[in-house]
Amino acid sequence: MDAAYLETRCRLVDKTLDRFLPKAKTRPATLHEAMRYSLFAGGKRLRPVLCLAAAEACGGTVEAALAPAAAVECLHTYTLVHDDLPCMDDDDLRRGMPTCHVKYGEGIAVLAGDALLTLSFEILAQTPPTSRYGVGSYVSELAVASGSRHLIGGQVLDLEGEGTDVLLSPSQLRYLHESKTAALLTAAIRLGAMTANATPARLESLTVYGRSLGLAFQVIDDILDVTSTTEKLGKSVGKDEATAKSTYPALFGLEKSRKEAARLTSQAHNALKPFGKKAAVLHEIADYLLGRDY
Amino acid sequence: MDAAYLETRCRLVDKTLDRFLPKAKTRPATLHEAMRYSLFAGGKRLRPVLCLAAAEACGGTVEAALAPAAAVECLHTYTLVHDDLPCMDDDDLRRGMPTCHVKYGEGIAVLAGDALLTLSFEILAQTPPTSRYGVGSYVSELAVASGSRHLIGGQVLDLEGEGTDVLLSPSQLRYLHESKTAALLTAAIRLGAMTANATPARLESLTVYGRSLGLAFQVIDDILDVTSTTEKLGKSVGKDEATAKSTYPALFGLEKSRKEAARLTSQAHNALKPFGKKAAVLHEIADYLLGRDY
Repeated sequence: MDAAYLETRCRLVDKTLDRFLPKAKTRPATLHEAMRYSLFAGGKRLRPVLCLAAAEACGGTVEAALAPAAAVECLHTYTLVHDDLPCMDDDDLRRGMPTCHVKYGEGIAVLAGDALLTLSFEILAQTPPTSRYGVGSYVSELAVASGSRHLIGGQVLDLEGEGTDVLLSPSQLRYLHESKTAALLTAAIRLGAMTANATPARLESLTVYGRSLGLAFQVIDDILDVTSTTEKLGKSVGKDEATAKSTYPALFGLEKSRKEAARLTSQAHNALKPFGKKAAVLHEIADYLLGRDY
Repeated sequence: MDAAYLETRCRLVDKTLDRFLPKAKTRPATLHEAMRYSLFAGGKRLRPVLCLAAAEACGGTVEAALAPAAAVECLHTYTLVHDDLPCMDDDDLRRGMPTCHVKYGEGIAVLAGDALLTLSFEILAQTPPTSRYGVGSYVSELAVASGSRHLIGGQVLDLEGEGTDVLLSPSQLRYLHESKTAALLTAAIRLGAMTANATPARLESLTVYGRSLGLAFQVIDDILDVTSTTEKLGKSVGKDEATAKSTYPALFGLEKSRKEAARLTSQAHNALKPFGKKAAVLHEIADYLLGRDY
């Protein structure tokens, strides 16, 4: 994908997030600082970029998709903040920087996560409705994908799997990846499409694209955890293996994992056929994710 | 207030919550059990009861207000679960029972809180819109009241005040109580009124009622912490004093605190004048809260 395109989009997303977030000095300042610290820590903005690209693929505008793009990024950031807590993954480093609880303390990190989650719905409520979709549809979409049966459910399985020597079965691992990663990626894409008033058939195609992309993304994440270096990745690597965590490479080996990532990526490409040239960016994002080494 | 009335309302709220919550056996079962454990732990259901009563005071139906009533109770419960965590208030006992993290572990307690917060917006999105208010208004109302500038902001002040010997000033304490308690009580009431398509003037009167009631509630909570017994209250008492926490009695003494609670309660009554007899239940709730001893 064009690096300049990505950078322009990232800047737009950052500007939007800055606009929606309370200023760092707003009372209580510690909380708002912590929220901004985690939100502007150099994330790839994959979910918001996908949201905007999906809106365009369906003939909509970037402007209409800005609120859900920002909402999804706030939500994603809260999951990282809570995931890193000592009672969860206990990570000190995220994107090369101290994690939120290391910098601000555990109590503030819990509250900053809670506040980012709450803010994501406050932002989402400002999305313009279309003839097919109202704010109720948007909120349901995000709440279900990020709720107890999907995203948070995946975190629970992950948490329960840690510290045990028992590997998950392949189908359990797929469920874990679908919940932890694919659900929110797919919601980001669907929300973008909904702001463009996409038909149910189009939404369904994008759901297949999102799920395939999300699963590919997670398999690649597992592979990178084995093959990359701490420096490149900006977070502690080798951690999955150390805790006997179930990953694709642990269950299937590196070679098979790479093939699975490629298969899922091509499945994502196929799902975009109905969109023709309008889906160029979505195609490029899929290729970009498969090729990344950080 | 009529005890039978309250009990009937509580049963209706419980039934509604049971309907909106995933079954305890839904995967991942530990999470859904933990959510239900904290939600059905014998809470007074004050916020949902207020929500339903406000809808009726504005000529609306109980049915239309059930979703926001349930949403607000899920949100309130998540704040309790996260508040009790070791990195926050570190409480082992809540309503006479082990707190969520004592029973299920800290990781699950964080996630159960996150899931209840997320669910509250999923439920709220199902509230029927009126000619004046859509789902966007409902979601904004709850998100702002429970977000970083209000409810969570209050938790931060509370957290920062702990472990220090410095008492808050009276105006800081008022800000703390407004954020921690009054904001969500007021949102519960306003949401109920909105489902009844209340005029902006009516909403404003109910805002005064809610804020006064919420502040009175918090002052009384502080008083009970000093005067009640662990057995009656079902939670650890004397804890505020032990941690040199700023409370109304600590700042003003018991006598003045009781007078302030009465003053706020009468302010709440006055705000209900425009509603005439339709506000009977709201009047009774105010008297009930002032008279409670647990």
